[in-house]
Amino acid sequence: MIRSDLNNRKCPLARTVGEIGDGWTLLTLWAVLNGQTRFEVLQENLGVARNILSDRLRRLVHLGLLVRRPISNGSRRCEYLPTKKAVELHEPLSALREWGERHCPSKDLTEMAY
Amino acid sequence: MIRSDLNNRKCPLARTVGEIGDGWTLLTLWAVLNGQTRFEVLQENLGVARNILSDRLRRLVHLGLLVRRPISNGSRRCEYLPTKKAVELHEPLSALREWGERHCPSKDLTEMAY
Repeated sequence: MIRSDLNNRKCPLARTVGEIGDGWTLLTLWAVLNGQTRFEVLQENLGVARNILSDRLRRLVHLGLLVRRPISNGSRRCEYLPTKKAVELHEPLSALREWGERHCPSKDLTEMAY
Repeated sequence: MIRSDLNNRKCPLARTVGEIGDGWTLLTLWAVLNGQTRFEVLQENLGVARNILSDRLRRLVHLGLLVRRPISNGSRRCEYLPTKKAVELHEPLSALREWGERHCPSKDLTEMAY
């Protein structure tokens, strides 16, 4: 869900949420910020449907948060790299991640068994 | 939208987004963190429908992010106060707000005229 109703508000936090608050948008951005730059790698690690990932990557490029460029090894494949604007989100997103680590325990029982 | 599909993931950022990533949840929490503790004040400042605000406040209380208590002046009205767990979100949310200030200009033309 892209919350366009929030994009235009006077509160800059509302505008941020409107721009990047969608769950898969944020998780895709976080993955790229942490070095997962290729479509197949992102899809496998995020466990997201291809069409959703395509949509969110296109959106992140459109927003000026990622750039798409050919992989330098000469193949026709592309990779996604974060812009400066995106890199500025690393610290606050990292803080939210740490908060989740402290306060939102995983309820995955198979994980808890180890 | 409450993204329960994200709640249970191994990535703590996904769990955070699943817990508080919903737009109105986040904006309600931010308003309470900044001293807007009463329902009527929140409703007016956020410009949100009463049923949505009620739902998000109930959810934030349920998550242990807000506590609901009678206003100390003896009236039967209540106010909402942030818990320690919620206060820990102030800094990262503040950073996201500053990011929005830098990178998501308001498109409100009436605002731009001043």
